[in-house]
Amino acid sequence: MVLGVYVLQAIGRSTYMLIRVKGVLVSKKSRYQQIDVVDTEEFGRVLVLDGLVQSAEVDEFYYHESLVHPAMVLHPNPRKVLILGGGEGATLREVLKHSTVERAVMVDIDEEVVKVSRDYLVSWHSGAFDDPRATVVIEDGRTFVEKLKEKFDVVIMDLTDPYGPEIARALYGEEFIERLHEVLADDGVLSTQAGTSFFYPEEFNELHRSLAKVFKKVASFSVWIPSFGYSCNFIVASKTRGLSEVTEYEVDQTLRARGVITKFISGKVVRALLNLPRYRKYYTE
Amino acid sequence: MVLGVYVLQAIGRSTYMLIRVKGVLVSKKSRYQQIDVVDTEEFGRVLVLDGLVQSAEVDEFYYHESLVHPAMVLHPNPRKVLILGGGEGATLREVLKHSTVERAVMVDIDEEVVKVSRDYLVSWHSGAFDDPRATVVIEDGRTFVEKLKEKFDVVIMDLTDPYGPEIARALYGEEFIERLHEVLADDGVLSTQAGTSFFYPEEFNELHRSLAKVFKKVASFSVWIPSFGYSCNFIVASKTRGLSEVTEYEVDQTLRARGVITKFISGKVVRALLNLPRYRKYYTE
Amino acid sequence: MVLGVYVLQAIGRSTYMLIRVKGVLVSKKSRYQQIDVVDTEEFGRVLVLDGLVQSAEVDEFYYHESLVHPAMVLHPNPRKVLILGGGEGATLREVLKHSTVERAVMVDIDEEVVKVSRDYLVSWHSGAFDDPRATVVIEDGRTFVEKLKEKFDVVIMDLTDPYGPEIARALYGEEFIERLHEVLADDGVLSTQAGTSFFYPEEFNELHRSLAKVFKKVASFSVWIPSFGYSCNFIVASKTRGLSEVTEYEVDQTLRARGVITKFISGKVVRALLNLPRYRKYYTE
Amino acid sequence: MVLGVYVLQAIGRSTYMLIRVKGVLVSKKSRYQQIDVVDTEEFGRVLVLDGLVQSAEVDEFYYHESLVHPAMVLHPNPRKVLILGGGEGATLREVLKHSTVERAVMVDIDEEVVKVSRDYLVSWHSGAFDDPRATVVIEDGRTFVEKLKEKFDVVIMDLTDPYGPEIARALYGEEFIERLHEVLADDGVLSTQAGTSFFYPEEFNELHRSLAKVFKKVASFSVWIPSFGYSCNFIVASKTRGLSEVTEYEVDQTLRARGVITKFISGKVVRALLNLPRYRKYYTE
Repeated sequence: MVLGVYVLQAIGRSTYMLIRVKGVLVSKKSRYQQIDVVDTEEFGRVLVLDGLVQSAEVDEFYYHESLVHPAMVLHPNPRKVLILGGGEGATLREVLKHSTVERAVMVDIDEEVVKVSRDYLVSWHSGAFDDPRATVVIEDGRTFVEKLKEKFDVVIMDLTDPYGPEIARALYGEEFIERLHEVLADDGVLSTQAGTSFFYPEEFNELHRSLAKVFKKVASFSVWIPSFGYSCNFIVASKTRGLSEVTEYEVDQTLRARGVITKFISGKVVRALLNLPRYRKYYTE
Repeated sequence: MVLGVYVLQAIGRSTYMLIRVKGVLVSKKSRYQQIDVVDTEEFGRVLVLDGLVQSAEVDEFYYHESLVHPAMVLHPNPRKVLILGGGEGATLREVLKHSTVERAVMVDIDEEVVKVSRDYLVSWHSGAFDDPRATVVIEDGRTFVEKLKEKFDVVIMDLTDPYGPEIARALYGEEFIERLHEVLADDGVLSTQAGTSFFYPEEFNELHRSLAKVFKKVASFSVWIPSFGYSCNFIVASKTRGLSEVTEYEVDQTLRARGVITKFISGKVVRALLNLPRYRKYYTE
Repeated sequence: MVLGVYVLQAIGRSTYMLIRVKGVLVSKKSRYQQIDVVDTEEFGRVLVLDGLVQSAEVDEFYYHESLVHPAMVLHPNPRKVLILGGGEGATLREVLKHSTVERAVMVDIDEEVVKVSRDYLVSWHSGAFDDPRATVVIEDGRTFVEKLKEKFDVVIMDLTDPYGPEIARALYGEEFIERLHEVLADDGVLSTQAGTSFFYPEEFNELHRSLAKVFKKVASFSVWIPSFGYSCNFIVASKTRGLSEVTEYEVDQTLRARGVITKFISGKVVRALLNLPRYRKYYTE
Repeated sequence: MVLGVYVLQAIGRSTYMLIRVKGVLVSKKSRYQQIDVVDTEEFGRVLVLDGLVQSAEVDEFYYHESLVHPAMVLHPNPRKVLILGGGEGATLREVLKHSTVERAVMVDIDEEVVKVSRDYLVSWHSGAFDDPRATVVIEDGRTFVEKLKEKFDVVIMDLTDPYGPEIARALYGEEFIERLHEVLADDGVLSTQAGTSFFYPEEFNELHRSLAKVFKKVASFSVWIPSFGYSCNFIVASKTRGLSEVTEYEVDQTLRARGVITKFISGKVVRALLNLPRYRKYYTE
């Protein structure tokens, strides 16, 4: 192990990761968090918030495609999409790939993250911030949603982990999920990342339970994100049809019809992910 | 992050993992390597060789079932099985679950690892070392195989990574693979773990290429092993039929017929794993 | 940096140390703390409590001689000595080297630490626990002192840092120092380790201030302890004469007269240490 | 331990230090080494070369004053001073404090380090680079000295450790030391940092031996440098008079006469440092 600059991040409760840094582009404290943008040897450029990797140049597509496309494909005609969090702009980028989208509203609490992403994470947003269909709102997602009058077809939660910093936790609570259910149209779909069910099984289960209580259908799957050090869970909750009812053919057909080009997600991959068991520790102290 | 004792292991070339240790049971140097058996908070008991986690109590079944059952199921009637490495005894345990097996020979170079496993990793071998069908040989796998006269139905390579310590590297070379091909019966199947294709794409590709050159059919898939910090690749090479030709139903049926009970592997899971793309970095310096 | 087992300990508030471990002899939780005894490559055997190095085989004499001899020498005839903490037995060992000592009482809260030291830290106590002049009491130092009727010539505080675990903090408070003043005979001397004044200047200053308020004379110095990663401060407080008044010749003469053999402390060294400025950061945020 | 960006540096052979980083100002690869300038919580700004702390804002004066003033004071009238290494400019700053100095030549191999220091380490050089008496040469110190015709009164070696990167090692060899002896005037003095004698006793001893062979008088002492994690040794070699012959009064008097203001070094401190024993491990495997 060579000496020098590293990012120390958490994988689990007492398991950590050290990532070798080649250069640091941004290192500042915003009103909400410590923001670091670093160039690493193995993950390319990486955005780190409060010591946790948010996404990395070489594997962010695994995360963002998994978060966005299964949910978008499940909805027959997603025209209005709400993104909570997602400051890097990559979730917005994936959403806008769907030709059906007329309006995508992204609400992030931290203006600094959005600014830094615009300047340093170009391959993440790829110009999505300047798409005429996109609106970026700097506000606490909770406040924004509470006063919201508009209805959305799809809501995507691209926040820190359910067991992470205090600020995002309230957005995973049952009360807020009920509010999101109201915000969604009758055939609405919600997608959220849910951290790691292996290291935080209780927290994952609680979120899954809350979603299952409020929504008619809930499906979940996980994808190993190398720069996270774990297989990240995603949950898709819907008011009418469940993700498991969508055929492989239908996924591919829908993506093609909407002009969506992907690197990872396809009908075959969605089906495979849904067929794998959830990670949990068969170990109790 | 609390202070105290940790295991520092590598995930990639410049990415590392720190695992909190609660207690240390064994910590000694054998003729070949440093052997540590530690109790950790998140992975239960863990065997560490030269600073690399070999397997952990809470997730070893993901690894050992993935290494053993797809290959065993692919063979119509595996009676004689050769295991190279696998000192913990868990690969042997999974092999012996197949009622067809009459003889399982495990060859590990390090007697100390086998001894330590027998005493401290009981849930790994679960008594497999004492099964009358099992023979444990302490010898360099290469030497053993070179002078071998006997033929085997299945060969399982449970060694350190292809890009790992020098000692195991020769066993991944094309020459040795050709030798293993000779050792296998006409419908023989070989299974090997292949480390991480994400962090070591060239090394993985080379091994895959060598196997594809020598064997008629080659299939590969990967499974996230939490205590490794990465999704571990497995390759199944065969002389007649390919793993992708085996149906979901056939896997389940064969496991059932042979009395094999699993926690992770099933027909559905094998199919899903084969349908997921290989991890690689879309990033070149 | 090779992979494997390490101890992660704190040096300052956000500065840490990783020490390579070759073997672990003890790793258990007592009622009060996590106790680890490890063999390291660079410090020999090391006692670690709650992730903090207490003392190491190769450099413990720097610490224990500095803690004991300046104070002992300052007293004209130390017959009764009280040690608070000091579970390893090395402080007791140094105290008993003074032929004037008739009774040395060591009070440590954690029986497990004393047991482990007896068995695994033999070069620390060197049989001191079995010296007929020694009494080992397992009790909270505070409780013991509060009910104490006996007077002592020298009190030595060999506790965790003033800014360390909650349990020892009360023993550094002004109230308790006043109580120790009462426990000391008219020409009594108190010696305490005081952690690092560089990383914790306020905490050091507060302790120094409290001692100066209660005692007539106070002197302090610091000694780099390699396995601590910092220069450790020691404070000697006395009721009559100050440490700085003792000449180089007198120190050597007294040690010789009492039959004390040392590796580090001598008249010249005590004088030199007292002439060096205190470490502090000329840096304020 | 909070998560985020850290510098991982070596203290000994298998002992390391993690320093929390608040911000990174420079992170680039020069022709010779990786250069990082970081702002840390406990050491202020820090220059890191190839993962090793060179000097830190809050404690560089301990290092630079110890390296420069004892040697300068030992010379009756140092007019010409040669500095090998010392890219930060702080050694130059201390040298120029002596009013006797007419010419100070600093030779550093890495132009990038000097540039970065000029821009980011202002409190280190404090304008010394622009002093009319100073000449900065970008060249390998060895090449520079080999072709040198000029004589110097004092030579100061401010290089990486004797056991450090290959590039500086040749400058600690006996052959080069003999060359430096030639370069020095008849009453010349040489000062060098010598790393840690505790962790690298053989390397220290070898350097000390070489200097003692070539020079008439050699003295050494060590000073704990918090950001190094160890007590750093310094050796002063001279052609006529030894450092230990200089009285406390003479040091103070000389500094005063030459208008030198210091924060750490004084007559009393030099004397104290010389009276402390050298750190070594009383431990042999």
